[in-house]
Amino acid sequence: MKDSHEPFVKACLLEAHRAFRKGEIPVGCVVVKEGRIIARAHNRTIALKDPTAHAEILAIRKALKKLGESFLYGCTLYVTLEPCAMCAYALVLARVDKVIFLAQDEKLGAVMSLYNLLDETAFNHRVRWEFLPVEEAGRLLRDFFKNLRHGKAGEG
Amino acid sequence: MKDSHEPFVKACLLEAHRAFRKGEIPVGCVVVKEGRIIARAHNRTIALKDPTAHAEILAIRKALKKLGESFLYGCTLYVTLEPCAMCAYALVLARVDKVIFLAQDEKLGAVMSLYNLLDETAFNHRVRWEFLPVEEAGRLLRDFFKNLRHGKAGEG
Repeated sequence: MKDSHEPFVKACLLEAHRAFRKGEIPVGCVVVKEGRIIARAHNRTIALKDPTAHAEILAIRKALKKLGESFLYGCTLYVTLEPCAMCAYALVLARVDKVIFLAQDEKLGAVMSLYNLLDETAFNHRVRWEFLPVEEAGRLLRDFFKNLRHGKAGEG
Repeated sequence: MKDSHEPFVKACLLEAHRAFRKGEIPVGCVVVKEGRIIARAHNRTIALKDPTAHAEILAIRKALKKLGESFLYGCTLYVTLEPCAMCAYALVLARVDKVIFLAQDEKLGAVMSLYNLLDETAFNHRVRWEFLPVEEAGRLLRDFFKNLRHGKAGEG
């Protein structure tokens, strides 16, 4: 991993662990602007009783509030899992500069798996993307679903 | 138009007019369960400084709160414009039963235009969809963008 990514990857994994401990699908996300983290979020679909409360959506909204802006030009979003179609297009709408994800979602991922939404030329904005594989991101998800099948929730 | 749709189409157009008067892109939406409107919303991306605050997303969230549920099983969502990719997949995540839209979005629509997301068989839930053309829905959008080009905001 390039050193420049390391603090953001760590922060993103920390958010995913927070979700895990709360019994939420463990996906974490941070938004970075000019080398600083301006927003952190994790998946909260259960706590908020809102199936659209994915880490990316919550992080985008927090980052917009923090900046007091209507768009996230110049921002990079790190997320532990490949975004779904909702989140991928939310990144386009929010004018995010780049998304970096740490695990692939082979079934439902909308960046390089089920769809390639961010390569779409019809959109008004292009979000650059990078798959930066980090074993822990995928492992956390596998552990979560394994525990779920065995009737356990959370870590440990 | 089938009579059964009429009150919901009217309510949906009323929401779109509300957006128009506020200078927001005029898209309106209602969520219907067992013949009753349980949530109404219009596009508020400017007011909320949130490019993800589309009518459908706001209506889904209101409907979930109103029902106190985590999903919208058995609900039909009426919206004046064909949903984008973000909203289309949000409908899947929210387990909406059916979406009915009144105008086509030829450039960015993700149901029957740019994409056919709701026909995807890989998803865990299938949202049925219907295009119910209502001239006023498209006209309101055309008027909005015409006014915008001519430096006017809102109706009249």
